Amino acid sequence: MVLARVIGTVVATMKDVNLHGRKLLLLQPIATDRSATGRAVVALDAVGAGVGEHVFFVRGREASFPFLPDEPPTDCCVVGIVDRWDLE
Amino acid sequence: MVLARVIGTVVATMKDVNLHGRKLLLLQPIATDRSATGRAVVALDAVGAGVGEHVFFVRGREASFPFLPDEPPTDCCVVGIVDRWDLE
Amino acid sequence: MVLARVIGTVVATMKDVNLHGRKLLLLQPIATDRSATGRAVVALDAVGAGVGEHVFFVRGREASFPFLPDEPPTDCCVVGIVDRWDLE
Amino acid sequence: MVLARVIGTVVATMKDVNLHGRKLLLLQPIATDRSATGRAVVALDAVGAGVGEHVFFVRGREASFPFLPDEPPTDCCVVGIVDRWDLE
Amino acid sequence: MVLARVIGTVVATMKDVNLHGRKLLLLQPIATDRSATGRAVVALDAVGAGVGEHVFFVRGREASFPFLPDEPPTDCCVVGIVDRWDLE
Repeated sequence: MVLARVIGTVVATMKDVNLHGRKLLLLQPIATDRSATGRAVVALDAVGAGVGEHVFFVRGREASFPFLPDEPPTDCCVVGIVDRWDLE
Repeated sequence: MVLARVIGTVVATMKDVNLHGRKLLLLQPIATDRSATGRAVVALDAVGAGVGEHVFFVRGREASFPFLPDEPPTDCCVVGIVDRWDLE
Repeated sequence: MVLARVIGTVVATMKDVNLHGRKLLLLQPIATDRSATGRAVVALDAVGAGVGEHVFFVRGREASFPFLPDEPPTDCCVVGIVDRWDLE
Repeated sequence: MVLARVIGTVVATMKDVNLHGRKLLLLQPIATDRSATGRAVVALDAVGAGVGEHVFFVRGREASFPFLPDEPPTDCCVVGIVDRWDLE
Repeated sequence: MVLARVIGTVVATMKDVNLHGRKLLLLQPIATDRSATGRAVVALDAVGAGVGEHVFFVRGREASFPFLPDEPPTDCCVVGIVDRWDLE
């Protein structure tokens, strides 16, 4: 999974029917020093994350697992809100 | 998913039979400031997107979900047309 | 999917049994201005593409779909020969 | 799979129910000269790895295989602790 | 698939039970001029490749196909030994 900061939301009236009613978050992947790294992604949310929070998200086929038996066509999903990380 | 701008279309007479009759869009991934980032991709379209529109697309196995029970051999599909995004 | 130019072929006597009898193409991914972008990949071919042609290829799990019920262990497959692309 | 060093752990009270009770490791991918390469990732652990150890991790759909019949929504999992590597 | 040179092996006493008894190769991805490109990966081997040989490997879900009905948690597997490649 990838560490990220929730930097915003996406509004999309026209979208795949299996995305209806689901919040779309904008995530900025971050390094362990909290600096931005790589481009922002659009993700679904399985844990109630809000703008400004640090989270980690899963990519790929597993991104739709939290919504089973629904299978929204997503490849990014927030699966945890980060309290903190501890480095060696 | 990834933000992108629809920058064109691809014409291909010879293609896999499960792609027949499907529109092929050229997408330029973009950052949240709308600048181009990374190379263009060829995608299917599940939402009726047109050239010049901002969209988000899904990659990987989920890109064929909107077409079930058909399973076109695609790894990129537009699943939403973006009205706007709101940054913190 | 990704735009590419077929730049050659790979000869491999020793290969997984499910790749036997299948042509192995070398593809150079390209940008919309036809310049090379990123490293070359080895791909199977579902459409009869030849060296010098412009194609698009699919990556990941879907790359084996064109060969069902066979499931060759491939993550890259040419699924279309490009006649042209039209930019906005 | 990718070589990495375990550089820390992530604490997350709010997370997907299928991640409950699972340790979250922070991994820094490394090159064969042990230098850092690419951004850190958050991973589950199938082998009891500890901070400071060298490991290799699997990405994508296979990252949840070690936990079957559970299917935690993860795309990164440590599947081996490295004793050493031998270069030609 | 990706062209690579087998540059070494990885020794790991502690590993996922489905990796027991399987050789772990270190691969350096290469360009068509045989120069190194990108970071080394750890891969399983379906074809008996040895250190110093040029090979191609598959990534992702398909990397475990050569071992069915076993499903080792791997995302990289050597599926061919390269005799040569021919460029246009």
